[in-house]
Amino acid sequence: MSTTVSPLAPKSHPKMPAVDGVRIATAEAGIKYKSRTDLLVMAFDEGTEVAGVFTRSKCPSAPVDYCRDNLKAGKARVLVVNSGNANAFTGKKGRQSTAMTGEAAAKAAACQPGDVFLASTGVIGEPLDAGKFSHLLAGMVKDAKPGLWADAGKAIMTTDTYPKYATATVKLGDADVTINGIAKGAGMIAPDMATMLSFVATDAPIAAAVLQDLLSKGVGKTFNSVTVDSDTSTSDTLLFFATGAAAKKGAPKITDPKDARLAQFRRALNRILKNLALQVVRDGEGARKQVEVTVTGARSGRSAKRIALSIANSPLVKTAVAGEDANWGRVVMAVGKAGEPADRDLLSIWFGDNRLAHNGERDPDYSEELTSSYMKGDEIRIRADIGLGRGKATVWTCDLTKQYVEINGDYRS
Amino acid sequence: MSTTVSPLAPKSHPKMPAVDGVRIATAEAGIKYKSRTDLLVMAFDEGTEVAGVFTRSKCPSAPVDYCRDNLKAGKARVLVVNSGNANAFTGKKGRQSTAMTGEAAAKAAACQPGDVFLASTGVIGEPLDAGKFSHLLAGMVKDAKPGLWADAGKAIMTTDTYPKYATATVKLGDADVTINGIAKGAGMIAPDMATMLSFVATDAPIAAAVLQDLLSKGVGKTFNSVTVDSDTSTSDTLLFFATGAAAKKGAPKITDPKDARLAQFRRALNRILKNLALQVVRDGEGARKQVEVTVTGARSGRSAKRIALSIANSPLVKTAVAGEDANWGRVVMAVGKAGEPADRDLLSIWFGDNRLAHNGERDPDYSEELTSSYMKGDEIRIRADIGLGRGKATVWTCDLTKQYVEINGDYRS
Repeated sequence: MSTTVSPLAPKSHPKMPAVDGVRIATAEAGIKYKSRTDLLVMAFDEGTEVAGVFTRSKCPSAPVDYCRDNLKAGKARVLVVNSGNANAFTGKKGRQSTAMTGEAAAKAAACQPGDVFLASTGVIGEPLDAGKFSHLLAGMVKDAKPGLWADAGKAIMTTDTYPKYATATVKLGDADVTINGIAKGAGMIAPDMATMLSFVATDAPIAAAVLQDLLSKGVGKTFNSVTVDSDTSTSDTLLFFATGAAAKKGAPKITDPKDARLAQFRRALNRILKNLALQVVRDGEGARKQVEVTVTGARSGRSAKRIALSIANSPLVKTAVAGEDANWGRVVMAVGKAGEPADRDLLSIWFGDNRLAHNGERDPDYSEELTSSYMKGDEIRIRADIGLGRGKATVWTCDLTKQYVEINGDYRS
Repeated sequence: MSTTVSPLAPKSHPKMPAVDGVRIATAEAGIKYKSRTDLLVMAFDEGTEVAGVFTRSKCPSAPVDYCRDNLKAGKARVLVVNSGNANAFTGKKGRQSTAMTGEAAAKAAACQPGDVFLASTGVIGEPLDAGKFSHLLAGMVKDAKPGLWADAGKAIMTTDTYPKYATATVKLGDADVTINGIAKGAGMIAPDMATMLSFVATDAPIAAAVLQDLLSKGVGKTFNSVTVDSDTSTSDTLLFFATGAAAKKGAPKITDPKDARLAQFRRALNRILKNLALQVVRDGEGARKQVEVTVTGARSGRSAKRIALSIANSPLVKTAVAGEDANWGRVVMAVGKAGEPADRDLLSIWFGDNRLAHNGERDPDYSEELTSSYMKGDEIRIRADIGLGRGKATVWTCDLTKQYVEINGDYRS
C-alpha cells in the first residue's frame, strides 16, 4: 500500500451496496504489514455457487491449487484472503498452510473444507504461517456484516495505491439483482489473468456452470486484455460467487448459459470486469498514463490481439509514452516483431485522432504540434491499422516510468 | 553517443590490426549528429564474398531489403553505413534513398549496385536524404585506408556509450588469417538478431555459402542469445565479409562448410560474435549490471532457451537485479509464465553459487547475507534448474534501471 496515490485513481469510489447472502469481515493479522488490515473473510449463505479463472503459470501458488480442486464441486461458503504473503513456491509447507487455513475456515463457517476458497498475495517464496491468523477466522465469520465492501477492497491491497470497486444493479426476470466486485493489482500484470486477485459476488440465483461460462467469456476482453509489465503472477485468481438470495424476491434460477433472461446481467458483469481491469491498469506500478492500444485490419481477431499486446508490452513504446513522445516508429517496430502477418507498406498509425503514418511512411499532413499536445494527456490511445483484413482487438496498459523501476527495485527489502 | 560511459565498458579496447583487402573511411556528414562521424565506408578488394543475417521483423528497414536482395549473389565491393537515421518505415522514399546511395557507392567503387551493402541506424520514420552524403562516397572510397577500424566502430554508434571491437588472428591451413568485428547497440535489443548492426571481415578465402553457414550457426549462442529489452529492431544487420587476400600467403580456399581446416577459424569467429554480443549487452541502455541466465534440466535445449529468455526479459527480474535484491520469487514467476514444461516442486534456483530455492521451496541453508553481498557485484549469474530433463541454455541481459526509462523517454526529442 503506497503513500502516494496514482494520479490516475478514480476521483471517487462508488458506494457499494450489500449483496444479499454475503457477509464480510477484515482484520489486522500482522502477516507482514503493520497498522493496516491484511485479512479478509467473506461468508456466503448456504447454496452459494462459485466459478473461477486462474493464472496459467506452470508454478501456481498453493491457494490456486486449493481453489482449483474445490471449484469442481461449484459450492462456496467462505473465502479467506490474506495480503503480504503469496504462499507461492512454498512447497509442502504451502500445502500444509492452505490445509490448515481451509480446516479452520470450514470449522468457523460450519461447512466442509471443500466449500472454502483461499487467495494470498504478496511476496513469493516465504512460508505463510497460517497459525498467525487461522485462530481469527471463527470470530471473523461470526462478526461478519453485509455492508463492509469498502473494507474488503482495502484489506487485499499490496502495492496498490487505491482500492478497486465496481457495482451494478440490474433486472433478472422482474427482480433487481446486485453484482459487486473488488480487485487488486498492481505489478506482475499480464494476460492469462491480468489481475492478481479479484472477487465478484451477486445475489442472483445462477448455477455454477453458468457462472463459469459468463466468467470465462467475460475475461477475454477485460482482465485478459490488460497488461502492465508482461509478467504473469503465480497467484492470479478471479472468483465469482452467486448466493441465490434474490430468489426470495422472485429472481428466476438460471441453469442454462443461453437463457435469454441473462442478457442484461451479462452486460453488467462484463462492464464490472472491464471497470475493475482498467482500475488495475490505472494503478499499474508507477503509472502516470493509461494507454489504450487498438489494432484493426489484422488477418484475424487473434492476430490483432497478439499485435496489440506486442505494442502494449514494448518497453520502448511504454517509455516513449512516459516521455510524452509520439514515437510512432516504435509502434512500427512492435508491429514488426509480433510475428503476425503484416505488410509494412500498408500500415497506418494514429495517436488519438492524429494519423502519424500512412501506407508505410510518415503521414505528410501530420502535425507535430497537435500530437505533442495530445501526448500530454493522461489517457493515450494508440491505433495501428494493419491493412490486411478485418481482425480487431483492444488492450490496455500504462506507461513505463522511473517509478516502476523504483518500486520494483526495492519491493522485497 | 552518450557523454557518460557505461560502468560495464571494457577497461581497454583491443588494438585492431588491418584486414588485408579491406579499406576504411569515415566522415562527418551531419545527417543528424553534429561534430562527430556518422558515415562509414568499407571498400573491399575484388573477389570479396559476403554472408548476412538480418532482423526477422515484418517491417524491416529499406537497407535490410536492399542487402537481402544483394546477398543472393554473395559478392561485395563496398559497405556504406550511416548513423542518426534508420531509413526504416520510409516507404517509397526509403527505396529511392537506398537506390541512390547504392548507385553512388557503385560508381565510387567501380562496381555494380549489386556489390553494394547498406545499413542505417537511428530514428525510424524520418526520410533519409541520401543527397546529404552520396556525394561524399567517391572521395571516401578513394581515400580509404586499411588501418581505420577504431574510427569505423565510432562512426556507427547511436546511443552506445562506447565503440565495440573484437579481433582474432588464427591459422587457416598454414597461413595466418585475421578476423575483425565491430558492433553497435544499444536499445531495441532482442533475439532474432540482437545487435542493431555488426560487421565482421576476414582476409581468409572462404566462399559465400560457407560464410553463411558459419554465421547462421554462430549467431544462435551469441547475438541471438542476448536481450536488453525484448524489443526487436527493424534494422538488425550482421554482415560477414571475406576478402580472400590471405590466399596470397598460402591460405587454402574453403568451399565446403564441413572442411576440417575450418575448426580453429570457426571457434575464433564464434568467440568474436560472443564478445561483440556481450559488449552490446554491457552497453544496454542504462545498464549497471550484466546478467547471465542459465537454465538447466529443461525438457530440451529449445525449451531451456525459452525459459531463459522469459527470465531475462522479465521487467520484474531485471528491476530486482537493479535494486540488488536476490528476489528469486520473480524467477519462479518467470519460469511459470514461459509456457514450457516445468514442475514447481522440482525447481531449484541459484544467484551465483548461492542456492536460494530447492525442490519447490526456499533452501533452508540459504544465507541472506552472502547473497546480498553477491548482488552488489556488476556481473550477476542466475541459474534455474527445471529438474525435468537435460536441456540447457544460457542467455545474457542487463538490469532495468531508471536510466533506461530516462534515455528512452526522450530519445527522439
